[in-house]
Amino acid sequence: MIDKLKIAQKLDELGIHFIEGGWPGSNPKDVEFFEKARSLTLPHSKLVAFGSTRRSKVKAEADANLLALADAGVKVVTIVGKSSELQVIQVLETTLEENLSMIVDSIGYLKAKGLTVFLDAEHFFDGFKVNPSYALRTLEVAAEAGADCLVLCDTNGGTLPNEITVAVEAVRGLTNVPLGIHAHNDAELAVANTLAAVNAGISQIQGTINGYGERCGNANLCSIIPDLKLKMGIDCLTDVQLAKLTEVSHYVSEMANLIPGAFLPYVGSSAFSHKAGLHVSGLRRWADSYQHIDPAQVGNQQRVLVSELSGKANIIYRAKEIGFDLPLRGKEAQKLVEQVKLLESRGFQYDYAEASFELLVHRAKPDYQPPFELVDFMVVVEKRRRPPTKRNLEELLSEAMVKVRVGTEIMHTAAEGNGPVNALDQALRKALLQFYPSLAQVRLVDYKVRILEESIGTESQVRVLIESSDGVKEWRTVGSSTNIIEASWLALADSLEYWLLRQKLWVSLQQSNLLISS
Amino acid sequence: MIDKLKIAQKLDELGIHFIEGGWPGSNPKDVEFFEKARSLTLPHSKLVAFGSTRRSKVKAEADANLLALADAGVKVVTIVGKSSELQVIQVLETTLEENLSMIVDSIGYLKAKGLTVFLDAEHFFDGFKVNPSYALRTLEVAAEAGADCLVLCDTNGGTLPNEITVAVEAVRGLTNVPLGIHAHNDAELAVANTLAAVNAGISQIQGTINGYGERCGNANLCSIIPDLKLKMGIDCLTDVQLAKLTEVSHYVSEMANLIPGAFLPYVGSSAFSHKAGLHVSGLRRWADSYQHIDPAQVGNQQRVLVSELSGKANIIYRAKEIGFDLPLRGKEAQKLVEQVKLLESRGFQYDYAEASFELLVHRAKPDYQPPFELVDFMVVVEKRRRPPTKRNLEELLSEAMVKVRVGTEIMHTAAEGNGPVNALDQALRKALLQFYPSLAQVRLVDYKVRILEESIGTESQVRVLIESSDGVKEWRTVGSSTNIIEASWLALADSLEYWLLRQKLWVSLQQSNLLISS
Repeated sequence: MIDKLKIAQKLDELGIHFIEGGWPGSNPKDVEFFEKARSLTLPHSKLVAFGSTRRSKVKAEADANLLALADAGVKVVTIVGKSSELQVIQVLETTLEENLSMIVDSIGYLKAKGLTVFLDAEHFFDGFKVNPSYALRTLEVAAEAGADCLVLCDTNGGTLPNEITVAVEAVRGLTNVPLGIHAHNDAELAVANTLAAVNAGISQIQGTINGYGERCGNANLCSIIPDLKLKMGIDCLTDVQLAKLTEVSHYVSEMANLIPGAFLPYVGSSAFSHKAGLHVSGLRRWADSYQHIDPAQVGNQQRVLVSELSGKANIIYRAKEIGFDLPLRGKEAQKLVEQVKLLESRGFQYDYAEASFELLVHRAKPDYQPPFELVDFMVVVEKRRRPPTKRNLEELLSEAMVKVRVGTEIMHTAAEGNGPVNALDQALRKALLQFYPSLAQVRLVDYKVRILEESIGTESQVRVLIESSDGVKEWRTVGSSTNIIEASWLALADSLEYWLLRQKLWVSLQQSNLLISS
Repeated sequence: MIDKLKIAQKLDELGIHFIEGGWPGSNPKDVEFFEKARSLTLPHSKLVAFGSTRRSKVKAEADANLLALADAGVKVVTIVGKSSELQVIQVLETTLEENLSMIVDSIGYLKAKGLTVFLDAEHFFDGFKVNPSYALRTLEVAAEAGADCLVLCDTNGGTLPNEITVAVEAVRGLTNVPLGIHAHNDAELAVANTLAAVNAGISQIQGTINGYGERCGNANLCSIIPDLKLKMGIDCLTDVQLAKLTEVSHYVSEMANLIPGAFLPYVGSSAFSHKAGLHVSGLRRWADSYQHIDPAQVGNQQRVLVSELSGKANIIYRAKEIGFDLPLRGKEAQKLVEQVKLLESRGFQYDYAEASFELLVHRAKPDYQPPFELVDFMVVVEKRRRPPTKRNLEELLSEAMVKVRVGTEIMHTAAEGNGPVNALDQALRKALLQFYPSLAQVRLVDYKVRILEESIGTESQVRVLIESSDGVKEWRTVGSSTNIIEASWLALADSLEYWLLRQKLWVSLQQSNLLISS
């Protein structure tokens, strides 16, 4: 619930015009959402409640779903009605005439309540193929009943762009009521179908952030918005709003508890990545040579990936980006390239673990002194049935013991945790906090596990990616092993080592600033 | 290498006409691929080697990359040449005239070797926008030099479908050489751009399985092929070949060590899934009401998801699918619904773990007798620096102890493993094999870990999905806990319990068959 309110706030910041908040007639949680949403301040967005036309043979004023819509406390509602003859007969199991009355009565009832009413014409394009005159008739009666927008739905997502164009043009010939498009991605054409509908004259676009939606998803607003604004010259958002697109995309992923899609157009972390040596040297000569827009326009950024495929030039370029100017033919560069290749062959990957990569660069220098060294660890996970006198019949215990060297001192300590990796994390921090109390502000914000070589089951190579934060900035580290505990141990240690290193740099930088300003 | 050969074999089975096998002039591994590929039998596909036009100011017959192409042992080659004025000047750093000579000389050299030559006209659409006459000129000289196909590339992936149409039509007016399209997905339009090019008259489509490719990917053949065949009536594959599409998509994911995209059109496991009660009741009335094609045409299937959103009706439908006819109002159905809701709130998910769901159905029956019960376990992971006299300075040890009850007997045993989960797996099997020797044929083929509620770091809820096989069929089970070891333990136990249960059913079935036939 809190998430849904937060998402609404975020969509408003992006400048979305209408936010469909839920179906109060079908879900008590959605009623609660609209109640709580009254306290939101949304300068750009209008909240919309979703519902359907009245049920067959029921009066509009007696239909629970329409009553819930009228009571939702919003000024705009969308109702879904059927535009396909086959759907009316075979799914609704009513007559074509009764379906038209359902549309007319429902719109009339909601308009009489002073609401703005959008009609989602379900299965419109499929209906238009089989019986175009009936499909058009459902829109005609809706327009006459006072609908404020007729939204043409490709509910099953199987329509082609040229079919969209023909059908939208047919509707344009029929009515002056504004039209909308609601596309699904079942033929991988949701974005193209939406753009085709825009070209044919529609003015409302329905879609979702990142294209999230059932089956293959809905039309992806994170692609449609920049396509409209940057390529078709349709000024649907301001430049400042558009530059929030990547942030909003990742925010919604996080709220939905889904991994952000790396390969998503415009907003994905790979969308402006360059890997092959050819492209990277091209990029150095001409920034736009291998990207279709400036990533900053959508709040994204160019990335040069350090990967197995990359040569010495890429690694040196990446090192330079983070402030290390390695001479191309120097020993350090050679050592680093060999180290990266060796670790990559063992399952490490530095595309996203830029903090672990930076540590590799440090470690390639002959005079590098690590802030601590790992010596030993032991982890125990135990599940025992206790005698029935105890309150918990089953108890699960996770404990870790670690030994760490700082300078010449050895710290040997232990901790419990909520799972083996958490126990290890707790014990490692406990050991290091005695030397570095400021480490207390570092926390893990994300922990991902990826099984490599999936075919060999529980003996697989495991890659752990950890994201950490000190409340100001975030960094990512990687560990790899056939043992998930060891992979986690390596990524955890890198995370803390990186922060201690940065902390030291940051302190000396601050000191020199103080010197200059004093 | 073996993977690449296997993929080539699979693409041939699907009926793909040309397979680009690699760049022998840039990568020694690719030279090896073409050598080994000579032993493949590919009745449908021709192997193609990829390369580029000669370097600036170098003779074709002295260009290492062209020599490698001629030596690759294939009959067809594709070379990439530049069609954009800006690219020639700013990236290639040569003259427009020299670029034309590079195209002509390279095609001439390869044609003289008796090869079929395709030209990938890089940045053609971007070049056509800035300087259309030069972009067209690069194609004209290629046609005159004898190119067998001119492939128009949207290298940066930012072109719109109507721009594709205009540019392809301009090329069609220029030459009768067959044309091709190579699209990228940076504006989420790769599939639509490919279809627009087909409508404008091209005959070769370049793309990848699942759209895998750099940045946002290449044009996705798994969407394009069924769009062409099922919606546009272009008979590019036979019906039998098309029905292999889902299998090939999943096979390539596995070989590429990527999780198959659940939401991929046509081939994704969600592509024909139905969750909401509305759709499921619609589906029962009319199979095609909520799907745009018959999933069997592409080798996929309809799925009814058992999920948090689903009501009693869905769970009963799913139970019936696997052979349990639960009365809608019976106690068992109610118990099952409550159990599913409780477990889902703890992170279990049954959408893909159909074996764990089937066990829930069994366990809802009052007379269910499990083949074994878990009592206790303990797992230890230890890493110690050994004295320097030992060969391995660092040793990593994973050990598990398990206690299992079968009937009235308790088995208590222990095993080492390659990581904690593998140790647990080994120990559990060791304990059970004494009672059920046939379990030896069960093995784990996939082990996936998903972190839920990612924001709380190493204390997160962990969901483990395990896929097992007995060499004949495969099944999937799920476990969830804040402790990865416990989550794995639950999924492992379900996997073995499911097989023992099925095994028993299978044996009694076989016995009754024997009785009938004797």
